[in-house]
Amino acid sequence: MEAIGERINGQFLDVKKAIKDCDAQVIKDHAINQTKAGAAWLDINTGTAAAEPEDAMKWLVTTVQEACNTPIALDSQKLPVVKAGLEVVRRDVPLMLNSVSADPEKLDEWFPLAKEYDAAIVCLTMDKDGISQDVNRRIENCTTIVGKALEYEIGLDKIYIDPVVLPISVGQNQPQMIFEVLGQLPQLFGPEIASTCGLSNISNGCAERPLINRIMLTMLAAHGMKSAIVDVYDKDLMDAWITADLLQNKMIYNDSYLDSARQ
Amino acid sequence: MEAIGERINGQFLDVKKAIKDCDAQVIKDHAINQTKAGAAWLDINTGTAAAEPEDAMKWLVTTVQEACNTPIALDSQKLPVVKAGLEVVRRDVPLMLNSVSADPEKLDEWFPLAKEYDAAIVCLTMDKDGISQDVNRRIENCTTIVGKALEYEIGLDKIYIDPVVLPISVGQNQPQMIFEVLGQLPQLFGPEIASTCGLSNISNGCAERPLINRIMLTMLAAHGMKSAIVDVYDKDLMDAWITADLLQNKMIYNDSYLDSARQ
Repeated sequence: MEAIGERINGQFLDVKKAIKDCDAQVIKDHAINQTKAGAAWLDINTGTAAAEPEDAMKWLVTTVQEACNTPIALDSQKLPVVKAGLEVVRRDVPLMLNSVSADPEKLDEWFPLAKEYDAAIVCLTMDKDGISQDVNRRIENCTTIVGKALEYEIGLDKIYIDPVVLPISVGQNQPQMIFEVLGQLPQLFGPEIASTCGLSNISNGCAERPLINRIMLTMLAAHGMKSAIVDVYDKDLMDAWITADLLQNKMIYNDSYLDSARQ
Repeated sequence: MEAIGERINGQFLDVKKAIKDCDAQVIKDHAINQTKAGAAWLDINTGTAAAEPEDAMKWLVTTVQEACNTPIALDSQKLPVVKAGLEVVRRDVPLMLNSVSADPEKLDEWFPLAKEYDAAIVCLTMDKDGISQDVNRRIENCTTIVGKALEYEIGLDKIYIDPVVLPISVGQNQPQMIFEVLGQLPQLFGPEIASTCGLSNISNGCAERPLINRIMLTMLAAHGMKSAIVDVYDKDLMDAWITADLLQNKMIYNDSYLDSARQ
């Protein structure tokens, strides 16, 4: 699976403070350290606290891309914030937009941008009526998304379906619904369609957060999830992920496979 | 999933010595402690070293069943050893026979015993030609097993298909084959058919045994495995297992769910 590093997010206090103080080193350190820890993408989210989220996004994107060549994900559901990031983004590294809901009018706004920037795009299986508790409705939303992708001639390998992870403490049937959606994706749309989720939300409000995150990630991998937004600094989580890749025959075994995967 | 405790096995030195010395306390302690650690079944295997494996099986079964009421699995591929266990086994607790290969002549020997004792029976997806590297052959073996179960009127909930776990260091495609077999079982034979495996073999000869065992178990759970023969003393493994059950909505969440599951 591809790890999307979650750490450059204004909801974390150190990042919030760095945005306020324009302290580039904090951001660059997270960019480099997450990459070293195994992040294939760096998520960039200004958080809700930034007074000028467009300016904050521009500064974060520029700062991260001065530090490393790791692909970035512009994370906001507000199109102006994403567009601000696009104004300054480097065009020589892969890009992801994160995220748009499955409403056709939203997709009509976001997909032309994804096409123009050749960007991957995270598409939530929710719509203007919210997050449906009917698995078939979530899959209908996938069909809407894929239909629009075909319309805009965006390859399905760029479409990262996000089945929307809710806390286990809120709805115990949520993981099963997500596994079901993931299982149907390749059957309905072929093997190339991508998938992702915000993993940590599964354990929001729970006592055993790292354990629940780790086991959820492993089960998601078993059900074919292709990426996830995670805390790549959580070594046990990344060890679980690498081992899941090993057991799915995605890497060669040797006794140092954990180290090998990190290099 | 149901945990089958692997520890009462003559391949472990303390058990081997206890068999030799007729030291019942060692065996009783393992029976009680494995039960406390979450074992739903206690596997009983004399190991290869016992001079008189029939006598050793009788003594082990009697000793374990004096200590606790936990269901037991008579573990030998030698029918005389299993029959010796059957001579002394209590009839008031569930029983499992572990294990028979998918050869029709073997099934004709073992299934009448399973029927007579109303015992669950572990059936390996291997035959006289060995462990096939063709997943379709392993599934054909399942069909042979299920056909014989119908012939002998044994409920499929008593049939524990064992897709045969080989070390990841030997064959990297093995886990994928097992996941494939597990995925097909309910589709082909209905949801009631059971499944199991000897988990620890996946990491035989590997440096990161506990981690590999834990992630394999979690992925097996995701693919519908119903039980496994495991080291129930491995707390991290059992925590992973309980959490997988939680994420499959098999238990109610509370912040002490790990403790709750053990009580």
